[in-house]
Amino acid sequence: MKVKHITIIGLGLIGGSLGLALKKQCGEALKVTGVDHDQETLELAVQRGAVDYSTNDWKRGVEQADIIFLCTPVLQIIPIVEQILPYVKVGGILTDVGSTKGFLAEKLLYMMPSGVHYVSGHPMTGIERSGIMAADRGLFKDKWYILIPEASTSPEAVEIISQTLTWTGARITTMDLYDHDQCAAIISHIPHVVAAALVNLLGKYPALEESFKLVGGGFRDTTRIASSNADMWADICLTNSQPITQSLLQLKELLDEMIQAVEKADRPAIHHFFKRAKVRRDILIEETDSHVV
Amino acid sequence: MKVKHITIIGLGLIGGSLGLALKKQCGEALKVTGVDHDQETLELAVQRGAVDYSTNDWKRGVEQADIIFLCTPVLQIIPIVEQILPYVKVGGILTDVGSTKGFLAEKLLYMMPSGVHYVSGHPMTGIERSGIMAADRGLFKDKWYILIPEASTSPEAVEIISQTLTWTGARITTMDLYDHDQCAAIISHIPHVVAAALVNLLGKYPALEESFKLVGGGFRDTTRIASSNADMWADICLTNSQPITQSLLQLKELLDEMIQAVEKADRPAIHHFFKRAKVRRDILIEETDSHVV
Repeated sequence: MKVKHITIIGLGLIGGSLGLALKKQCGEALKVTGVDHDQETLELAVQRGAVDYSTNDWKRGVEQADIIFLCTPVLQIIPIVEQILPYVKVGGILTDVGSTKGFLAEKLLYMMPSGVHYVSGHPMTGIERSGIMAADRGLFKDKWYILIPEASTSPEAVEIISQTLTWTGARITTMDLYDHDQCAAIISHIPHVVAAALVNLLGKYPALEESFKLVGGGFRDTTRIASSNADMWADICLTNSQPITQSLLQLKELLDEMIQAVEKADRPAIHHFFKRAKVRRDILIEETDSHVV
Repeated sequence: MKVKHITIIGLGLIGGSLGLALKKQCGEALKVTGVDHDQETLELAVQRGAVDYSTNDWKRGVEQADIIFLCTPVLQIIPIVEQILPYVKVGGILTDVGSTKGFLAEKLLYMMPSGVHYVSGHPMTGIERSGIMAADRGLFKDKWYILIPEASTSPEAVEIISQTLTWTGARITTMDLYDHDQCAAIISHIPHVVAAALVNLLGKYPALEESFKLVGGGFRDTTRIASSNADMWADICLTNSQPITQSLLQLKELLDEMIQAVEKADRPAIHHFFKRAKVRRDILIEETDSHVV
């Protein structure tokens, strides 16, 4: 199949950036339609060149699409798929960009009618801003985009999605569903919860409110992702609850380790806590950077 | 007093950057001497132009100094002050850059002989790298530098230190000792512990080691400060133990709040947790930025 028409549902940061990247790479050879419930977003997406045409009508939005990217918050995806399935053409492929996959993948795979495919995906990108005005055609460049094929997923559909995504500059890889959700909890979801908790900790000290304006780069970076979209993150927590609560309990154990070491003035234990983190992070970042082409 | 000669003890990131900033601003009008125990550091500090002259000899290092900046890890400061006090000239001012002040300030104020002053200070700056090669003459520019005068601190000495520090481009402010240590725990020390804990959490999942290379910008930023110097941070935890353990216990309560909300699938509670963090952080960062000249 030659991909000629793509529809993006949900023209926020990810959907908008995807449209900008695809149009930049493919120009007139690819038609991109955008669907959103917000009228201003529909207009801005066309103005910014993220889509050729935009609509809030499901039928007109999806009926010609070879691929439909579902880019809304996670909990909106299944209700939307129920709405659009009657209009998806035979051979069409649905794929989503949600951060939690177990919750969606099973349901969606079983919902697909004959001749319509679903491929589960997750771009490891994102910034704390959201909305069409934050969209950036370089958002995917050199970032990992994970595809999560299951036993019943069409290998041909995976190949088509993979090929299409290379147009965004992303690095494509595949991953097991269970591993993905556990890994996403540890390297993305827990850091978001913790960043929010660090900011909420300030609320326990109203008398120091003025002094908090002295925050330096450390606090700023550590809590950057606490400025993310609250709706999106509520959905993520609800749909990846078991890995998230498990890892939060483990994180609490690590904090207990430090509390006990500090209370006992156990310098070797405190030093080891910081040292093993530094060694692991320095190696991880070096390995990650060396993967960038 | 006109400041003509400054000595910096400890030529790491902060000491080295201070020397570079002062020499850049004052040139030949200010003599800067560096003291360190490491021979290579002494040579590099001169080569980089952070100091005019360097030595590992206490007497030669400090005897001419109008101001002595103590820039070593916190636990080394008091033993060093004991060593150098016999050689400090009358009218000389000692000041330190340690991140925890209660531990030091009381002891140091009482150690000062007649005619020698101590001013407690803390630059709210720093990066995860350390050592003289990471030093940067712009490190202090537009960053807060907190002075913490106590009842027995000489106001004239505070004024001289404040005036000298303006040469680095820092924004000078003063703060109460107790407030400083509590505030530093919340906006600096706890984020460092948490960043290290987030990295150490990866160690609980050896089977996912390969997948962790997919880390995106969120994890990278949130844990950046986990690559900091372990020795320095061990000292900080030991010397600010009460505010740190108190705030870590509060942070654990906040994580419990989230665990319970996720287990109960309580979307309003999860949303509120993220939303109040986003609102608070966005306001805080806006106010902080608006203070930059």
